[in-house]
Amino acid sequence: MRIGILTSGGDCPGINATIRGVCKTAINHYGMEVYGIHSGFRGLLDDDIVPLTEADLTGLLNMGGTILGTSREKPFKKKGNSALSDDKPTMMLKTIERHQLDCIVTIGGNGTQKTAAKLADIGVNVVSIPKTIDNDVWGTDTSFGFDSAVTIATEAIDRLHSTASAHQRVMVIEVMGHKAGWIALYSGMAGGGDIILLPEIPFDIHRIGDTIINRLKKGKPYSIVVVAEGIPTLNGKKAAQFVAEEIAYETGFETRETVLGYIQRGGSPTAYDRNLATRMGGHATELIATGQFGRMVSLKGASISSVPLKDVAGKLKLVTEDHDLITQGRRMGVCFG
Amino acid sequence: MRIGILTSGGDCPGINATIRGVCKTAINHYGMEVYGIHSGFRGLLDDDIVPLTEADLTGLLNMGGTILGTSREKPFKKKGNSALSDDKPTMMLKTIERHQLDCIVTIGGNGTQKTAAKLADIGVNVVSIPKTIDNDVWGTDTSFGFDSAVTIATEAIDRLHSTASAHQRVMVIEVMGHKAGWIALYSGMAGGGDIILLPEIPFDIHRIGDTIINRLKKGKPYSIVVVAEGIPTLNGKKAAQFVAEEIAYETGFETRETVLGYIQRGGSPTAYDRNLATRMGGHATELIATGQFGRMVSLKGASISSVPLKDVAGKLKLVTEDHDLITQGRRMGVCFG
Amino acid sequence: MRIGILTSGGDCPGINATIRGVCKTAINHYGMEVYGIHSGFRGLLDDDIVPLTEADLTGLLNMGGTILGTSREKPFKKKGNSALSDDKPTMMLKTIERHQLDCIVTIGGNGTQKTAAKLADIGVNVVSIPKTIDNDVWGTDTSFGFDSAVTIATEAIDRLHSTASAHQRVMVIEVMGHKAGWIALYSGMAGGGDIILLPEIPFDIHRIGDTIINRLKKGKPYSIVVVAEGIPTLNGKKAAQFVAEEIAYETGFETRETVLGYIQRGGSPTAYDRNLATRMGGHATELIATGQFGRMVSLKGASISSVPLKDVAGKLKLVTEDHDLITQGRRMGVCFG
Amino acid sequence: MRIGILTSGGDCPGINATIRGVCKTAINHYGMEVYGIHSGFRGLLDDDIVPLTEADLTGLLNMGGTILGTSREKPFKKKGNSALSDDKPTMMLKTIERHQLDCIVTIGGNGTQKTAAKLADIGVNVVSIPKTIDNDVWGTDTSFGFDSAVTIATEAIDRLHSTASAHQRVMVIEVMGHKAGWIALYSGMAGGGDIILLPEIPFDIHRIGDTIINRLKKGKPYSIVVVAEGIPTLNGKKAAQFVAEEIAYETGFETRETVLGYIQRGGSPTAYDRNLATRMGGHATELIATGQFGRMVSLKGASISSVPLKDVAGKLKLVTEDHDLITQGRRMGVCFG
Repeated sequence: MRIGILTSGGDCPGINATIRGVCKTAINHYGMEVYGIHSGFRGLLDDDIVPLTEADLTGLLNMGGTILGTSREKPFKKKGNSALSDDKPTMMLKTIERHQLDCIVTIGGNGTQKTAAKLADIGVNVVSIPKTIDNDVWGTDTSFGFDSAVTIATEAIDRLHSTASAHQRVMVIEVMGHKAGWIALYSGMAGGGDIILLPEIPFDIHRIGDTIINRLKKGKPYSIVVVAEGIPTLNGKKAAQFVAEEIAYETGFETRETVLGYIQRGGSPTAYDRNLATRMGGHATELIATGQFGRMVSLKGASISSVPLKDVAGKLKLVTEDHDLITQGRRMGVCFG
Repeated sequence: MRIGILTSGGDCPGINATIRGVCKTAINHYGMEVYGIHSGFRGLLDDDIVPLTEADLTGLLNMGGTILGTSREKPFKKKGNSALSDDKPTMMLKTIERHQLDCIVTIGGNGTQKTAAKLADIGVNVVSIPKTIDNDVWGTDTSFGFDSAVTIATEAIDRLHSTASAHQRVMVIEVMGHKAGWIALYSGMAGGGDIILLPEIPFDIHRIGDTIINRLKKGKPYSIVVVAEGIPTLNGKKAAQFVAEEIAYETGFETRETVLGYIQRGGSPTAYDRNLATRMGGHATELIATGQFGRMVSLKGASISSVPLKDVAGKLKLVTEDHDLITQGRRMGVCFG
Repeated sequence: MRIGILTSGGDCPGINATIRGVCKTAINHYGMEVYGIHSGFRGLLDDDIVPLTEADLTGLLNMGGTILGTSREKPFKKKGNSALSDDKPTMMLKTIERHQLDCIVTIGGNGTQKTAAKLADIGVNVVSIPKTIDNDVWGTDTSFGFDSAVTIATEAIDRLHSTASAHQRVMVIEVMGHKAGWIALYSGMAGGGDIILLPEIPFDIHRIGDTIINRLKKGKPYSIVVVAEGIPTLNGKKAAQFVAEEIAYETGFETRETVLGYIQRGGSPTAYDRNLATRMGGHATELIATGQFGRMVSLKGASISSVPLKDVAGKLKLVTEDHDLITQGRRMGVCFG
Repeated sequence: MRIGILTSGGDCPGINATIRGVCKTAINHYGMEVYGIHSGFRGLLDDDIVPLTEADLTGLLNMGGTILGTSREKPFKKKGNSALSDDKPTMMLKTIERHQLDCIVTIGGNGTQKTAAKLADIGVNVVSIPKTIDNDVWGTDTSFGFDSAVTIATEAIDRLHSTASAHQRVMVIEVMGHKAGWIALYSGMAGGGDIILLPEIPFDIHRIGDTIINRLKKGKPYSIVVVAEGIPTLNGKKAAQFVAEEIAYETGFETRETVLGYIQRGGSPTAYDRNLATRMGGHATELIATGQFGRMVSLKGASISSVPLKDVAGKLKLVTEDHDLITQGRRMGVCFG
């Protein structure tokens, strides 16, 4: 049996660990051959494919990024009336045939799951693994990369506390999350944020101001505000800037903003993410070995299973207002808007 | 309503976060009064109790240790024929009555759960929270402190890789876990251990030697061995020393041992543990508010619930050989004995 | 002998450690009394002063921020024709007299040194300690806070490498440094930056483009660019944004920017900074005990000494182009503009 | 010009960074050819030598260990009456000649400097770079690896504080340093150790006991004791165990010991060490380019220079009792014995 493996979409901590999990299991346990496809689906278009051996897997467990490279190539997306792009599926099929790949393992976020589902639709054996720092892939409790991103964001929030307190300021920090506020929620709660704003929950700037004023009355003339990048703003302003300006206007407090940015994506995965990535990688290989294609590996509670790719594609896992961390945060006085 | 809170047994990252979770929820949301009991159950014997206010809770979220102090006092344990120790339950009841405490929150490991169950048996309203780096408390998927300990151990193993590789040595690292090998399993897998030995799985030194020799044949003249402190040894030797000597004898490789020790217990909790501690603390307060006593807070899958204390007491949650990480490790060539 | 101590200007890691160094030495060794002045020089205006005891010093060594609070109050700065502000020096003298403070210890950056010199001019016994993450205080080889800031920035750059490589992008990171490029130079070199831009060295965007193109030719289709916030830009653009846009225009590469911001200031100081802060704090107290006022503590090579405050005030320590790290970076192919 | 480079003795953080510094400067700037010699001087005996290109240098800056491998081979050491070992120098000369190496760069600690000096004595062009976590190489203010080891040890001590305080215990931690107590001194002071024991300063167990009792009287019923592994003990006991037992006997306090061990050597170097390693590597290449052989690169104050190898060989840089950190520590109440 011969499998190809690719990574697609934004990079995140743990991709290399899951590549290692897939390939070591495939080679050691099942005696499969493994081929690395470079730069996501672009590698299937360009025939940029190399065999992977055990030697290639050394040192991957704690390495950030992806040794296979990635791209945002969406081979099923039609561009205008262009007939050319319609040929992309055919090009991929030819590449897969040329290398006699019996199955493709796709590692990626929501976009990747959608593409993987379409690849399965045109007859390719696909097994997919969710990968996103944003934690918004539907069908799995969590994905590797999320705990690492939350850890980095929490450390950053920890650092802001000393400046907030020393200068009696409101510090606003913007973390990743366009549509889903998972990172903001988890890092905000772990970092002791006083106000946490998510794209999923509408906020009222007056209530935020009140929270800050109330803290002052309790002898705490400073506050930490954690915002997801995807919250609604006015005049095209970025999340942190918008909220900082509104708070300054509303309360008269000195405010400062920080945009955490790309450092949330990089570097060595946490122990939690390494083990999750390893388990998911291993399960993907097991699905292949048992001929269960068209599925995405999934974490449910404490165990790894899988869900049909077609159930995942096009959906988004959002924070709901009844989430335990929100309920608990509110009880403790955290303002969610 | 007036509640007392105590921490008992070995310290671990996240205790202060859960104290904060209990107390902030109790004070802010339910308007309860909270009293801190010092040095575990000893504080109930010595009447070492102080009121806690919101000001006492500042900065607790990421602080290691416990602001309440702890002890290994077991007030229900009879010492010889001594009648004196039998008075300890009475002394505790008097203290509780004197301060008019409606409920006691006990935060601790297995020993603490046992004592908490007995305290409930003599009529005290008890709500308990599991706390252990060892992850061996029965009735909960995991407890805060475990992820932090695994993280510290994994970082240590990461560091050993460079020495192992540079010197072509076998590095043996001993992590905590007297009866349960959870830390060894999780940090061993996250750190890329080649051999992982747990108290729950008997090991054969010849098979370990073979693993090391096979790695040499594959061009890897070094290995990482992760052992739990509680694995069986001979002549009263400590785990790491015993395994290192056996491997040296069996393979002729240069071996070195490291005993990680107390640094696994200390310092700031991970983001994961902070959120778990916060949620468990909040849930404890909710149990109190709704009059559900004699229960231990518990994580099941993604949600927090509770189990009867009497079901927990005296049990131990051990690693079973069908654990997904073991199965997956074996497929990837990790030797578990 | 009775001393007052204040912290002024931007907060930085190590302030609390140096407060501890001053006060423990003063109390334990010299039997002095110590008073903490809150919020920098504003505390001298508002008479916001409290006695400090050994109990207040517990836990300060590794704590970020400043327990005394800080402000940017410049009491010698005249505002317009206002006569009021001219009274500030008198107000401070009265406060000092009221509390019978024999000496004021001022901990701060360049602005603070200037104010400290003026305070000395009007007859106050002043001993000053340099404190800046920017490393731009004249008269000392380095100051605490700098190593911590460089460490944080280097970790951030480490993280960007994986994204740069996975996505074949140019990652631009902006670190602190308005006039002095010390953080950019040290973190850029420690983080393996390919291009490092400082306010002190004019840059040519064509040469930067060439560096990126040359890396592509050598098989490295990605680059890391580290810029100080104070480099010259056009149209009021921020440093990172300006450079990223110019590079994208010049090379056609996909570029992304990150502004590190306030997290460079916060959190626990590095071991290096803790020891430097402790030594500087101790030396300040020694200067007081031996009656050497009007001086700033200073690191010269491996030893701590002091320089006259009037020599320091108004000067800035900038990176010079013959700095060893620049010479060495250029030999290794790093582009400094 | 063709140079060979080897790493010898115990591994330490920053070796790979200095290999990168030497080689990038040699290849990029001077157009030299570089050969990597494996496993220290053993590679010169076994002719285990490979050319190094720029591609081999990617990712080295923050990588622990040494890509060249290391050994404790001492080719000039005579073993008994064996004539064989006397041939080792000849074997090395032949290897050097066979590969037409114009110069050998040796990276190592005290033993390596001694061997390097002897290699120079028999006519080889040698340039050496000091490398030790112990900071005991004579002739340089510090060497890379030391700051990294101090950082790791300080983090470990930070962690012990919470356990010490929570359990009211004396925690004894043993750090590396056989003859020189630099790591104990720097990490002990940075970690807030109450008692710090170095091989260079005799200690009196009664005075240590008094320190612990005095802390109890001041309301601090716990202490942190940092000991170098090389302090004198009785009955062949290890440093930490010996001190812990003596303190328990002397004071009746519960004591616990931790031996930090090999994790002090491994992992990614600090930003400080990376820059020091880079600068030292670059300077070594400059020495070669200007024909200055038989010298060891050295840090003096803020600048890099070099000293004759023959002045270094056989000497050890020890802590002296008038060291500023000891003087300052004593003023603050730290007990050094």
